This record gives sequence, C-alpha cells and structure tokens, in this order.
Amino acid sequence: MAERRPAWCYRRTSDLTRDEAEALDRADELAAFRERFVIPDGVIYLDGNSLGPLPKATATRVAQVVEQEWGQSLIRSWTDHGWIDLPMRVGEKIGQLIGAASGTTVVADSTSVNLFKLLVAALDLRPDRKAILTEHGNFPTDLYVAQGLTALLQCGHVLRSVPATDLLTALDRQVAVLMLTHVNYRSGAMHDMAALTRAAHRVGALVLWDLSHSVGAMPLRLAADDVDLAVGCGYKYLNGGPGAPAFLHVAQRLQADLRLPLTGWLGHAEPFAFEDLYRPACGIARAVVGTPPILSLAALDVGVDVSLQTSMLIVREKSLRLASMFIALMESEPGFNLLTPRSADLRGSQVSFAHPQGYAIMQALIKRGVIGDFRAPDVLRFGLAPLYVRFVDVWDAVSTLRDVMRENAWHDPRFQQRRSVT
Amino acid sequence: MAERRPAWCYRRTSDLTRDEAEALDRADELAAFRERFVIPDGVIYLDGNSLGPLPKATATRVAQVVEQEWGQSLIRSWTDHGWIDLPMRVGEKIGQLIGAASGTTVVADSTSVNLFKLLVAALDLRPDRKAILTEHGNFPTDLYVAQGLTALLQCGHVLRSVPATDLLTALDRQVAVLMLTHVNYRSGAMHDMAALTRAAHRVGALVLWDLSHSVGAMPLRLAADDVDLAVGCGYKYLNGGPGAPAFLHVAQRLQADLRLPLTGWLGHAEPFAFEDLYRPACGIARAVVGTPPILSLAALDVGVDVSLQTSMLIVREKSLRLASMFIALMESEPGFNLLTPRSADLRGSQVSFAHPQGYAIMQALIKRGVIGDFRAPDVLRFGLAPLYVRFVDVWDAVSTLRDVMRENAWHDPRFQQRRSVT
Repeated sequence: MAERRPAWCYRRTSDLTRDEAEALDRADELAAFRERFVIPDGVIYLDGNSLGPLPKATATRVAQVVEQEWGQSLIRSWTDHGWIDLPMRVGEKIGQLIGAASGTTVVADSTSVNLFKLLVAALDLRPDRKAILTEHGNFPTDLYVAQGLTALLQCGHVLRSVPATDLLTALDRQVAVLMLTHVNYRSGAMHDMAALTRAAHRVGALVLWDLSHSVGAMPLRLAADDVDLAVGCGYKYLNGGPGAPAFLHVAQRLQADLRLPLTGWLGHAEPFAFEDLYRPACGIARAVVGTPPILSLAALDVGVDVSLQTSMLIVREKSLRLASMFIALMESEPGFNLLTPRSADLRGSQVSFAHPQGYAIMQALIKRGVIGDFRAPDVLRFGLAPLYVRFVDVWDAVSTLRDVMRENAWHDPRFQQRRSVT
Repeated sequence: MAERRPAWCYRRTSDLTRDEAEALDRADELAAFRERFVIPDGVIYLDGNSLGPLPKATATRVAQVVEQEWGQSLIRSWTDHGWIDLPMRVGEKIGQLIGAASGTTVVADSTSVNLFKLLVAALDLRPDRKAILTEHGNFPTDLYVAQGLTALLQCGHVLRSVPATDLLTALDRQVAVLMLTHVNYRSGAMHDMAALTRAAHRVGALVLWDLSHSVGAMPLRLAADDVDLAVGCGYKYLNGGPGAPAFLHVAQRLQADLRLPLTGWLGHAEPFAFEDLYRPACGIARAVVGTPPILSLAALDVGVDVSLQTSMLIVREKSLRLASMFIALMESEPGFNLLTPRSADLRGSQVSFAHPQGYAIMQALIKRGVIGDFRAPDVLRFGLAPLYVRFVDVWDAVSTLRDVMRENAWHDPRFQQRRSVT
C-alpha cells in the first residue's frame, strides 16, 4: 500500500506515474464508495459538478416508489409511505450535511425559485435597506432572479454587483442582503463563508449563500458560521438526479418573522383544512409551496443518503488531493490558464482552465470518454467528486488531454471556422 | 352488446342491475384503456381527481430515464435524450389536450408557482387596475398565492372574492384579472369558461383559468374561447404521478409583452451563454425558471401520451354517463346531499356528496377498497376518470357504500366522539 502523501506534494508532481496514482486509490478510504454509483465503462466522469451520476440504489428506490407506492398504494402513499413528510425529512438530512441546526432546512422547488423566496424574505426583514449585494460573475440564475425581483417590486431596490475583491468595501448599511455563491461555478473559487457572513452582520446585513457547488463536496458549518439564509442544488454533488428538487435554509432565529412570497397550499399551517385564508406553517415548513415532485424527490433522498454515509471532512481532504494532483499534472501542458485558486482554502471541488480552443478540446475529450464541461467563452471545467472519482481517473484524464493536444491541429484556420458556427 | 343509453337515463335508474352495468362496459369504446393502467386488485379507484393511477408504460419509461439516460449517458442526456426540450415538448402535448394554439403551453414548476407567475404577469399587463377577482371557495392554493402576492407588492392590489353567483356583477373596470378554477375541487361544479372569459374581456380584464380539475377529463378550447392565461396540474386526470410538474398557458397575443417575475436561468434567451443580464427567451419558453425535475417530467410525458390516444369528446361523454349513473344510484340513499350540479353543462368529472359522517363513511369505504376522498367538513368526493373507471365500478362503489351505511352505527354517540378527535 502506498503511503499517503500530503496534498501540497502534487504541486510539483507532474511526473507522477499511473502506478503511483493507482496506489493512491488502493489507500483511499473512500474507494469503496465508487461501487455505489453507476459509472459507465470507458467513462471518466468529471462533470459531477453539473450532474452527479446515478447511485445504484436510486434505480431500485425509484422503481419501488413508482411501482409499489404510486402503483399499488396510490393516494394513500401520501400518508402510508410518508410522501407528505419527504420535503422536511430530506431537508433535515441535507441540514446535517451543511452543518445546519435541525428544523432549518427543507427541500422545495428549484434553486432559482428558492432564491426568489429568500431574497424577498431578506428584503422584508430589512425594510429600510434597498440593496442586494453580489459579485460579478455570480451564477447567472442568482443574478437573474435578483434582477427579476427588483423589477417586480419597483420600490427602489437595486442589485449591486461588484468584483469579488470589492465586496468588503461595498458592504454598507444600505445592503439588506449579501447574496453569494459559495463556490464559483466557473472558476471553482471559494469564498470564506464565515468571514463574509461576519462582515455582513457587522453592518446589519443578512447573508444568502448559494451552496449549489459546495454541498456534498465539503464540510459546511451554517450554524457555526451564523448563516442567515441559504439555498442549494440537489443534482450536483448530492447526486439527486437531473433537475432534482433544491433546498433552502433559514436560521431558526429568523423563522418567527419569516414572510415568504410564494404561499402555496402545502406551506399552510393546516393544508388539509382547505381554509380560505393563508396561515403559514410553523417554521421552515412554510417554505414548501406546491406539491413536490415525489419521484425526483425520492431519488434525491437516495443521493443524500450516500453522502451521509461518510464524513464531509474525508470527502474534502480527497477532493483537495485530487485537485492538487490535477493541477500538478497540468503544469507541463502549455496554453492552459488555471482559473482555480491554488490555495486549498480558496477553492471548491473542481479545477477550471481557460484555453482559447476550450470548446473543441472539451468536445475531443468527451469523445474519448473524459467528461468534463465547457463554459463560454473559453473555460474547461473538471469536477472532482471524491465519492467516485479516483486518482487514476485524474491521471488518465490529463493523459487523454495531452493526447488530444498532441493529435489535433488547433492552429488550423479551418478549425477556427468550424468553431465559430458551433 | 348492450345498446348505448342516453346519459339522462340514469337519473332515474336507481334500479340499474350489475349485469346492466357490465353490459355498458362491454359497449364502452374506452374499455381497452383501462389495461394501460395499474389498478390494484380489489380496488375501485375513484380518486383520480387527486392522484391519477400509474400508467403501465410509466414504470418502463422512468426506469429507462434513470438507468439509461441518467445512468449511462449522464450529462449528455440534456441534448442526446432531449431533456432540455422536455418542458416545451410536453407542454405542446398538453396544449393539444386543452385546445391551445401551438407555442402557448409549457411545463414548469408547480401549479402554485405558476399561478404566482401569471398573476404577476396579468397585473403587469393591466397596470392601472388593482383587483384580482375570484370566488369564495376557490382552491386554497389559488387564494393563498393571490394573498401572498398582494401582500408582497404593497401597491394597493386586492384579492376580491365573491360568491360564484356574483362574479358577473363584480366584474368591473378595476379588475385586472379574473382568476377562477374551471371545475371546483370540492363540489365538481364547472364554470362556463367561454362566457366568463367574454364577460371579463368586455370590461378589459384578463382571465386566468386553473384547469387542474378539468384537463384530461374533458375537451377544452382555450384558443377558441380566447383564454388569456391558464395553469393546471399534471397529477390528476393527466396521470403524471405524485407531484408531477404543472403547466401554464399564455395566449400568443400576450407573449410579446409578457413579463414574468421568476427569471431563472433556463428561461433565458441563451441559457448556456451564462450572461450576467437576464434576457427572456422567446415566447412561452421564458416561463421555465430553474432546471426541471426530469424523472417526474418524464412520467408526466407518459401520462399525457395516454390521454392523447383518444378524444376528449369521448372521454367527456363517458364521464357524464358515469356521473349520471352514480347520482341516479345514490338517489335512494338517505342522508347524502348531492353537491355536484345535476346538469351536464355545469359539472366536471367528479361527484360530491355532503354527509354529516362523511369522514367516517369515506374511511369505511377505503377499507373496503373503494377509494374516494374526503374534504372537510363533510364532503365525500368521487372522481370518475373515464380512461380506467368502469360502469361496474360505479355500481360496485354505490353498492359498497350502501353496505357501509347499513352495517355501521353512525347514530351511535360514541362514534360522534371518536370523529371529533380525528
């Protein structure tokens, strides 16, 4: 068995051999988790930051929900199989993954819709303030939702967007809520959640963290960091399936005064009383709006369960090692500009490189079974999900990338032309 | 083969025999559709107005989406298996069922969230008007969403709720939008969509119809009736599965000026350009907000396909006959107060009765395999979905109800006590 080597080691380990990578896998305490996922033959899957792969238990569970619960028990499953409690039950599990207190996290709607709900709630809790502060290049849906909301309210609210480096100076007493994505979808850069939350609180602002690119990939400490509000995605590192429902978190101390704009029947204090007047359910349960998509929610439940079977500390440690190795192996490859911070404290669970021919390179990689993804104009993203990505996968991915670069005529002007019509 | 008898016939046919009911089933041109659904042995399922049963093809399709599309093709399925187009594709199919023009219907979110989106759009299209007009006893989520919205906007908007009989007189030039559910969830009473839409248009108001209890159970003519806006549910008569995504409709003539408040990344003109500024997608596609729950959406697709394989005219005719028969057979049963209008023009696809012991009676029925449902305080609802409910089911359901009434001591004061703590 290979001895474990510290993560920093790989910064200069561009000469790591494939055997050494395999040895690291043999020593990996998460190695067995890979067996819980369907990873197709010939595929190196480095896109779990976009859509996590299928946990093997999910097919069985979804079939059971479809054939037994829906098919045989029909409407009775809302109570007999606990469908009605699923949003709270799965939310509670996600709460454990993100270090949130019990009763603060629930599954509902999509990340976009949840952002809308919590932005409205934040503005309502800070009625004298008009600014939503965010950073340039935040995930588009976060920006779009805030734009849509300020246009809707027509009460002088503004979305103030600044470069990340200016966030602290832009945090003033006009800011009602600081809305940030914890890990940037494009670069993989990670914010210091505790520090920014403290800074926001110092000026009386709330924080709304989008955890889409961090939940399931690292330990989070929402309670300890005193986070007010958060949302996140179920289909990336939580492996909940395509378009899995999202989640949202509201700190206990804010729940009594929490007013949400989407007041659906399932967030009512007594949904089955069918009253004419809305009365919010107690606590976070009011954030459920309409009837949740049970098949997708059941799949999310299974994905979350897989993550709960290990420690996010172990996941994070392997994630950093995988990324360090990826970065180190790429050092010798010219033309790739690393976008992800090198410091472990400053990055999430992906590595991103800019390359002028990024789109074509990614297409060529995908053809050879190395699945990452491309973000315009020139970013190659590689997600490193420790539950199923092996050290040898990173080694093979970089090796394939080298082959691609060697074999293709990226300098050919005809190629440039093809690219432009894609 | 039994001759088909006109629907009115059963109003006085409380002496119809079981053999005669079976003969009607043998002559039923929809009879073969029942084979496409899983109906558990010993169950008479009269709750399809709450949750439609499982189409047999759904289990196969969902397994394929899970195991092949997600499991094997992973992220590539967004394009290779057309996930990205599913909201528009399934929406287009639903558009056919509701008589809407092409390009006016899309699947997204829940009915509640879609109500919110379209109410905002309606108020935006009628900026000088402050009233949302609806009726007492509309489905709670419709009322709650409107209440949440008026509270959010704080611009003097009001939800004006009147008895159904007062709708026409309440329709004045302060009304921005008339929001009604086509078929009442409790009584099964049906509005005249064409007439009310005309009346609203006469005073310059828009209409927003909630089709949750009519889509899939009858022909609808949204284009011909000049309906502005509509929403509807996927898990009732569309048999899309528990919490299936909902749909919404916006008439073509309103789409150019359509401003929706929930501006998510998937409603952007170019989602994969990841621009910082929101630009709405062309037409109805902008109503998609976040990433849709694909497993649930694929199940909905199958359910909709089943309905598309017949004519809603045929479905409606059988629905009326089933209901007429149910009502006729119940005439001899004392203590049940029919809530559903007797006139075919005034009712949807369910029959409802009030009975002081409604809750306990429904529990007893369910125990014997006759699954309807109960709505407080005293309503027994029986959904009559013509694709799988047989005439003999209606006969057997009423027969079981008679047994229940004969065998139980509803007059026993101890029972009254039990009921009150339920």
